[in-house]
Amino acid sequence: MKKSILLVSHSIKITDGIKEMIEQMQKAESVQIFSLGGTAEGELGSDSMKIIEAVNDSPDAECLVFADLGSAVLNAELAFDMLDEAQQARYHLVNAPLVEGAFAAAITAGVSDDLDQILQEAKNAGRKGWDNR
Amino acid sequence: MKKSILLVSHSIKITDGIKEMIEQMQKAESVQIFSLGGTAEGELGSDSMKIIEAVNDSPDAECLVFADLGSAVLNAELAFDMLDEAQQARYHLVNAPLVEGAFAAAITAGVSDDLDQILQEAKNAGRKGWDNR
Repeated sequence: MKKSILLVSHSIKITDGIKEMIEQMQKAESVQIFSLGGTAEGELGSDSMKIIEAVNDSPDAECLVFADLGSAVLNAELAFDMLDEAQQARYHLVNAPLVEGAFAAAITAGVSDDLDQILQEAKNAGRKGWDNR
Repeated sequence: MKKSILLVSHSIKITDGIKEMIEQMQKAESVQIFSLGGTAEGELGSDSMKIIEAVNDSPDAECLVFADLGSAVLNAELAFDMLDEAQQARYHLVNAPLVEGAFAAAITAGVSDDLDQILQEAKNAGRKGWDNR
């Protein structure tokens, strides 16, 4: 099973950094990482068309979509609405923090085809076990 | 009240991106953002000395510390142990996702001196309101 991790943020530095960090840790051929931060012009902002292209570019993959905030979240939702039904069935908006969630999902996806498990690991990420001190 | 937001990650691209995103949204003089990703050599990795320097560089600020994962989290804890008592009292490890938490904290800190409120906003960030679909 192929899995694509789609990283959506206002900042391409953030999504490039996450992609680099993941690819340093795991190189599974079944997992592809898409850095989709910033606008088409390279400015701060986000772009639903980049998301749709990433779905088109991974035609037989489950797409796990992570976004950070504001219009990055909205564009991830908007992209869903613009996909066809078959694409929507493999497009998963993951309710998890961008960096921590995508990292946990990618590492898990490198060793597992269990989509529920991958999503669960992503949702459990982001807890530091810190009380505020 | 001065507030410093300390961003800790393996990747300086990630922390630079967050700093840029925050500074585009708010320019309160009472809030300073420190991008502390990467090692001293600019490689992927994290460094507790960068964190301690940031605390020293903001001598009268409450320091809100955000980290993403693995040894970035450990280095944020290690830095706490290396601070003196007065510094520890104003060093707050925030149990929140890096991008979403730091962004919410910084925006709130720009308009509020209520530390509890700032921490609460950070902890509530990162929820996308998405069920997995």
